[in-house]
Amino acid sequence: MARTHLTADHHKRRVERLQEELDERALDTFLVFNSKNIFYLTGLSFIPTERPIVLIIHQGEVNFFVPSLEIDHVQHQVPFISQVFSYFEYPDESHPMYYLRDVLMKELKVTPTEVASEVAGAPGYWGYHGPKLEEVTGLKFELLPDIIMDMRVIKEPEEIELMRESSKWADRAHKYLQEFTEVGANEIDVAIRASAQGSADMVAELGEDYHPTGFSMFPAMAIYRGQIGPNSYFPHALSRGLVFNKGDTLVTGASSNVYGVHSELERTMFMGEPSGRQRELFEVMLAAQDAALEAAGPEASCADVDRAARKAFKDKDVFDLVRHHTGHGLGMEGHERPFLDIGSEDILKPGMIFSCEPGIYEKGLGGFRHSDTFLITDDGIEVMTMYPRDISQLIIE
Amino acid sequence: MARTHLTADHHKRRVERLQEELDERALDTFLVFNSKNIFYLTGLSFIPTERPIVLIIHQGEVNFFVPSLEIDHVQHQVPFISQVFSYFEYPDESHPMYYLRDVLMKELKVTPTEVASEVAGAPGYWGYHGPKLEEVTGLKFELLPDIIMDMRVIKEPEEIELMRESSKWADRAHKYLQEFTEVGANEIDVAIRASAQGSADMVAELGEDYHPTGFSMFPAMAIYRGQIGPNSYFPHALSRGLVFNKGDTLVTGASSNVYGVHSELERTMFMGEPSGRQRELFEVMLAAQDAALEAAGPEASCADVDRAARKAFKDKDVFDLVRHHTGHGLGMEGHERPFLDIGSEDILKPGMIFSCEPGIYEKGLGGFRHSDTFLITDDGIEVMTMYPRDISQLIIE
Repeated sequence: MARTHLTADHHKRRVERLQEELDERALDTFLVFNSKNIFYLTGLSFIPTERPIVLIIHQGEVNFFVPSLEIDHVQHQVPFISQVFSYFEYPDESHPMYYLRDVLMKELKVTPTEVASEVAGAPGYWGYHGPKLEEVTGLKFELLPDIIMDMRVIKEPEEIELMRESSKWADRAHKYLQEFTEVGANEIDVAIRASAQGSADMVAELGEDYHPTGFSMFPAMAIYRGQIGPNSYFPHALSRGLVFNKGDTLVTGASSNVYGVHSELERTMFMGEPSGRQRELFEVMLAAQDAALEAAGPEASCADVDRAARKAFKDKDVFDLVRHHTGHGLGMEGHERPFLDIGSEDILKPGMIFSCEPGIYEKGLGGFRHSDTFLITDDGIEVMTMYPRDISQLIIE
Repeated sequence: MARTHLTADHHKRRVERLQEELDERALDTFLVFNSKNIFYLTGLSFIPTERPIVLIIHQGEVNFFVPSLEIDHVQHQVPFISQVFSYFEYPDESHPMYYLRDVLMKELKVTPTEVASEVAGAPGYWGYHGPKLEEVTGLKFELLPDIIMDMRVIKEPEEIELMRESSKWADRAHKYLQEFTEVGANEIDVAIRASAQGSADMVAELGEDYHPTGFSMFPAMAIYRGQIGPNSYFPHALSRGLVFNKGDTLVTGASSNVYGVHSELERTMFMGEPSGRQRELFEVMLAAQDAALEAAGPEASCADVDRAARKAFKDKDVFDLVRHHTGHGLGMEGHERPFLDIGSEDILKPGMIFSCEPGIYEKGLGGFRHSDTFLITDDGIEVMTMYPRDISQLIIE
C-alpha cells in the first residue's frame, strides 16, 4: 500500500523533536509563522492570506492563534491541540498583534527570557502591515528562522516514501504529456490535458487516501513552461501558448503533490528526428547528469557533484552554454537548501533528496536539461525518477 | 478589441511616475526585489527562486541585476533597459550580494546618501540566505516597502480594462463549473474540466494576444476548494476530492489572469431545491452584499461598507455566523490593501477595485458567500462581475 500521508502521531513526534531543540536552548515558547513549517509540524493546511496564523509551541504543547474564519478548520484538522486562541479579523479595530500579546502574556504567561520566534513579526503578505513582536510585547524574542528548515533537510523514512509516490505520479503525468504532444498542438492545451489525466488517475487510484495540502488544483502536473523550440533556450521561460513544430527541442517539467511533498522530473525531447547538433548537445547533457549522479553519495560535498557536471561540460568544450548549477534540495518547496553548487561545502547525508539537472542552452536551437529526483542513501544514491532518459525514447514522431 | 496587455510605453510611464516619487525624496537609486512590483513597472515576468533578481532604478534608468539563467530572458522581454548586470549563480563561490555591491558602488557609482530599497536585503525565499544591503555596501538604505504598492492601489484606466477582461473569463469558466457539476461527480474533476474548457476558450479567443505572466497553468479557472455540503462551513476549506450530493450547499471560486490582473467571482449554489434554511441564509447573504455595494462609492470609507454588511446581518440576527469582513482590494495579488473592514478608515477613491463578499457560515449546513468584483467610479461603483446572483439561477438540478 502506497504511503499518501503522515499520521497525527508522526506530526506529534516532529513537535517533540522541535521541543528537544528548544529545551537545549532553554526556550519555553516558540512562535511559527511559516505556513509550510506549520504544516510540517502539525498537518494543518490552510490558505495563507494577510491574516496572521501562528503556531505557538509552549511548554511542549501545541497552541494556535488564528482569525475567526479558521478556528473550526484548525480544530477539524489537528487532533492534538492544547488551545486555539483567536482574533476576529485583520485589520479590525484593534490589530491582531495586540490579541497575540495578550495570549502570550496573560493566557500562556510566557517566561520573558525564554521566548523565540521564526521571524520578528508576521510577514507583510497580501497587504498585511503590523508591528514587530518586540514592539507589542516589550519582550526580546530570540530569532530562529532556520530551526524547522534544518529539521526538514534530512527526510524521514516516511517522507521518502511520500517522495517515491510523488515521483510515480510525476512520471504518469509526463507519460501523458509526451503522448499528447504533436505538431500543431498548443503547449497549454497539451499541459492541461496531461495534468488533468494524470491527476484523474492519481485521485482515482488513491481515492479516500488523497490528502489536499494547499490551493493547487492539479494533484499531478506535467507542463512545458514555454520551453519549446528556440524559446527552450531560456532556462526559466514561461508558458505562452506556443505551438509545436517539427524540429523543436522541448524541455518539460512534471511533479505531483503527495501530502505536501513534491518530486521533480524534467526531460529534453525532440519533435521528430533530432539534428546532429541536437543529438550532440543532448548526449553531452546526459553525460554531465551521469557524472553528477556518479559523484553524489554520502560524505561527498554538494560542490563535488557540481564540479563533476562542470567537468563533463568543460571536457566537451560547452561550458559557455551553462547557465546554472547542477541541482537543489527537494521536499515541500520548489527548491530547498542545500544546493548542488560549486560554492556549497555542505556534505551529502543519507535522507537528503535533490534534483539532478545540469543544463546547457544554445541560442537559436534550445535548451538541453533533464531533471531527476534522487535520494542520498547509506551507501550511495537512489534515483527515484523512473522516466526514460535515453534519446531514443524521447523523440516524438 | 479587448485589452489583453499593457504596452512597453505604459510600463515606461509607470517607471517615470516612480521616478517622480524618488525625485521628491531626493533619491538617486532605488532597488526593487518584489517580483510583482518588477512586473508592474517593467513587464518582466519570471519565476521567483532563491536567486535574487533586482530591478535597479538609477537616475531614471532601468537596470537589472540577475543570475545568468535570466540574462537573455530579461533582454528578450523589456525593450527599455539601460544595463543588465549579472552573477553566475546562487550560492556560488562568492555571494551574489557582493556582485551587487560592486554594481552599485563601481559601475553605477550611486550617491551614498541617496539610496533606497524596498527591503533591507533579498528575501529568504526557497532556501536563500544572504547579508543585508547595508552589511555589504556600508551604505544606509532608506526603506520604502510600500512606495510601489501605494501606486498599485489606484488602478489606471488600462488596468481597469484588464480587470474587466479578467471578469469576463472568470464568468466563462464559472459557467462551465456550474454546467459540469452533478450529483456523484468529484469536485476536482469538475474543477479541472471547467478550468480547462474556460482556459481553452480564452486562449482560442485571445490567440497571439494571450500574455503569460507567471507559472500558473490555467489562464482561467473555476474551482470548489472543498466548500461542498457541510464542508462549505469552513470559509477557507481546501479541495479534497469531495463528491456532490443532493442537498449540498456549494461555494465556488473563479478567476482569470489577464496580464497579471486577477478578478474574483464566488457563488453560493445548491444541489437541488434548497431547504427553507438554505434559502433563508442565502437571501440574508444577498441582502448584505446589496447593502455593502449600496454603501460603497467615492468618499465612503472602507469601514462604512463593512458596517453596512454587518448591519444587514445583525438586522436578521445572524451576526454570530459571520467569520470575516466584507472584502479586500484586488489587482495583482489574491488580496490587496485596502480592506473593506470596520477597522479601516481608508477612503474609497475612483480607480480602486475590491471584492464584495460578506459571508455567513452555519455548522452542519454550510457557507453562504458570493464574491463580486467592483470598481469605484467618479460617481458610484461599477460591478464588473456579470455572473447571475439570484438563487433561481444557482440551483443545480
